[in-house]
Amino acid sequence: MADVQDRIRLKRSSVQAAHELIKRHIHKTPVLTSKTLSDLASTPQSPEALIGTTFEGQKPARPTINFFFKCENYQRIGAFKSRGAFHALARLNKEELSRGVVTHSSGNHAQALALAARTYGIRAHIVMPTISTPSKIAATQGYGAEVIFSGSTSQEREAVVENVIKKTGAVLVPPYDHPNIILGQGTMALELEEQVNVLVGEDPSLSVHSSKTKDVVGDVDGTSEPQTREGLPRRLPGHLDAVITPLGGGGMLSGVATALSGTGTLVFGAEPSYEGADDGRRGLAANKRITSVKTLTIADGLRTPVGELTWTVVSDKSKVRGVFAVSEQQILKAMKLVLERMKVFVEPSAVVGLAVCLYDEEFRHLVEKEGADEGWDIGVVLSGGNTTVEAITKMFEVGEDKGERAEGKLGSRGERVAENVAG
Amino acid sequence: MADVQDRIRLKRSSVQAAHELIKRHIHKTPVLTSKTLSDLASTPQSPEALIGTTFEGQKPARPTINFFFKCENYQRIGAFKSRGAFHALARLNKEELSRGVVTHSSGNHAQALALAARTYGIRAHIVMPTISTPSKIAATQGYGAEVIFSGSTSQEREAVVENVIKKTGAVLVPPYDHPNIILGQGTMALELEEQVNVLVGEDPSLSVHSSKTKDVVGDVDGTSEPQTREGLPRRLPGHLDAVITPLGGGGMLSGVATALSGTGTLVFGAEPSYEGADDGRRGLAANKRITSVKTLTIADGLRTPVGELTWTVVSDKSKVRGVFAVSEQQILKAMKLVLERMKVFVEPSAVVGLAVCLYDEEFRHLVEKEGADEGWDIGVVLSGGNTTVEAITKMFEVGEDKGERAEGKLGSRGERVAENVAG
Repeated sequence: MADVQDRIRLKRSSVQAAHELIKRHIHKTPVLTSKTLSDLASTPQSPEALIGTTFEGQKPARPTINFFFKCENYQRIGAFKSRGAFHALARLNKEELSRGVVTHSSGNHAQALALAARTYGIRAHIVMPTISTPSKIAATQGYGAEVIFSGSTSQEREAVVENVIKKTGAVLVPPYDHPNIILGQGTMALELEEQVNVLVGEDPSLSVHSSKTKDVVGDVDGTSEPQTREGLPRRLPGHLDAVITPLGGGGMLSGVATALSGTGTLVFGAEPSYEGADDGRRGLAANKRITSVKTLTIADGLRTPVGELTWTVVSDKSKVRGVFAVSEQQILKAMKLVLERMKVFVEPSAVVGLAVCLYDEEFRHLVEKEGADEGWDIGVVLSGGNTTVEAITKMFEVGEDKGERAEGKLGSRGERVAENVAG
Repeated sequence: MADVQDRIRLKRSSVQAAHELIKRHIHKTPVLTSKTLSDLASTPQSPEALIGTTFEGQKPARPTINFFFKCENYQRIGAFKSRGAFHALARLNKEELSRGVVTHSSGNHAQALALAARTYGIRAHIVMPTISTPSKIAATQGYGAEVIFSGSTSQEREAVVENVIKKTGAVLVPPYDHPNIILGQGTMALELEEQVNVLVGEDPSLSVHSSKTKDVVGDVDGTSEPQTREGLPRRLPGHLDAVITPLGGGGMLSGVATALSGTGTLVFGAEPSYEGADDGRRGLAANKRITSVKTLTIADGLRTPVGELTWTVVSDKSKVRGVFAVSEQQILKAMKLVLERMKVFVEPSAVVGLAVCLYDEEFRHLVEKEGADEGWDIGVVLSGGNTTVEAITKMFEVGEDKGERAEGKLGSRGERVAENVAG
């Protein structure tokens, strides 16, 4: 059971306080729009695309979706994790800082903590499995952190961390399941809110609601007036209807949900479904947190199960409206669109929210119903961009096949899959 | 000999007039900075990197280089070509517009003209070789243009264009060798100038000159005062020392050089060297324009020779200070850096200017000498982003080997190359 004091701290004003503490250290990352992708999301899927899903044979949803992309791939170290790491350090006192920090991570959190520690002039010990990619090890060392190797199981890693703490007294900064990390990650939502407001203020046509508002001026019926839900203002230009973020350990999703709590903006989570990586979605369905996941989804930042504290937010219906999951192939399709159409370089974990908006019929039906005529302005978090040309080459060669095999669908690449299977 | 009237029109004020005409149709593309890439460019190359070049055995240059990237990959249709196409149409009268437009292009110019024609509500006939990539044909048709197929030689294409003109009376809009195209492309330089000025105004540390200016305050000698060259202001924060653009047909380079003429900002061109694609550099050395090139460089936007009118600007020393060329491998290395470090999705043609700054010792020695202690603020045009994941995969598999074979160097991929050669 997560600490009650920790849970009490998780409120919008705490995220605002966190933002004040970290904003001189982080980038205010850009918010981009894309008419091409919004048009695509607002086009019904083909009936063929639904074959093999629970929506097979039904009429495809006809939502109106308008995207605002929060580009955390342009954040320092190339991912949102810098926010939480800087906030964690900002909350340590002098004595704690003097002891240094320690964590176990082979991903973006390792580099984020290393950067924050260097900025604060303190030591960082990062425990990484020996099998980590050399480029990630080098990047972490490049920020001046001490990398300590361990075995790959969580027990092995934790034993090494315990040992570092015993020897150095370093303070543990976990990757997601800590209030300061959650509040730090949530700061992206405050920026997104403000940036969308400014963008739509400058160009009202960027919001689905402004364009309708213009029509309403001449609407004698007056039936299309801005509505409210639960007494909260919404359907106003510059005010997002929804935000969707990737969900791994849950630091980002619960931070964003905390930040937007009470604003009328709905918050959704997105997961890969491959090999059970959708532990959040499954846990919500069973009303019980799933504590262990073993998956090799290409969305490698989302292989961890939801944490204990983050679960208290993710499972709170008033904060997170729902969690949806997408296949490997859908992730690759979304990634290709972001690369080729938006010209933005992202890692696979970054695009699961977009993939839900484009391909998940349950989500799309929800937007069609609740968005009604106007549709929804949706903030989509592109969480990071730390991948390589080599990795992309590999995932599109192997990953598409994996996606198709996982779904039992061959589609237009059937021959290729057959060849690979035969070989 | 290019028309005298055309040459007279090529001046900064004409670019400013062009900008007024087109700016509501085009994007003011973002200008990005990258500390990582600026630091890399300001680090001397290893002596090994110079082996096999004319600089082998010499001390590597030690320039200080600070980049401002003009991201034309975020331009409409994904490349700078929209500027010229919109300007060409803005200059047609009603009667001419009513006849429609025609061009031959299998690249970005085709899509740019198709988009501009759709915007003006007129017909566009685009002649493309039958061997063009299906995605490019589809994209051009997607903008409502009529695609007409031809053979691949320039004679075959021109015959089809002639036929279209005879039948429809359509006005020919050439891809680069026309004053309206040149002036349109030049508009990017006006935006870049203004954007750098604003960025450095907001954060003076973004310019190499501001940081030095701060130091100079306490400099009792007073020897480091801002200098002038040819009586023009420079070495001022917010005022670029140089701009470098890719050079293919020369529309962009001569447009940018025209726009910046008389401002004190030096202008450079960058070409691929593979299979003689560096016709501009070779032409300047021989003092004679090279009119035909046959190359399969991966920088496919730069396979054309410099045009007749564009040559009058490119060969004018007061406008273009120099043209440099880079290998296929250097282009791939620069592209990888832009993708993986800047997280910006670009096509190979887009990065040749960056590759010159990073790898061309002659250019780097020039910056070291002329930039002296402070170094240079350099504007680098990233000209477009129209490529695909498939194309990138292929070029990194095949292209790196091609680059190494072309240079007679094997490097760390020696075994792989040997395998390919043997196979």
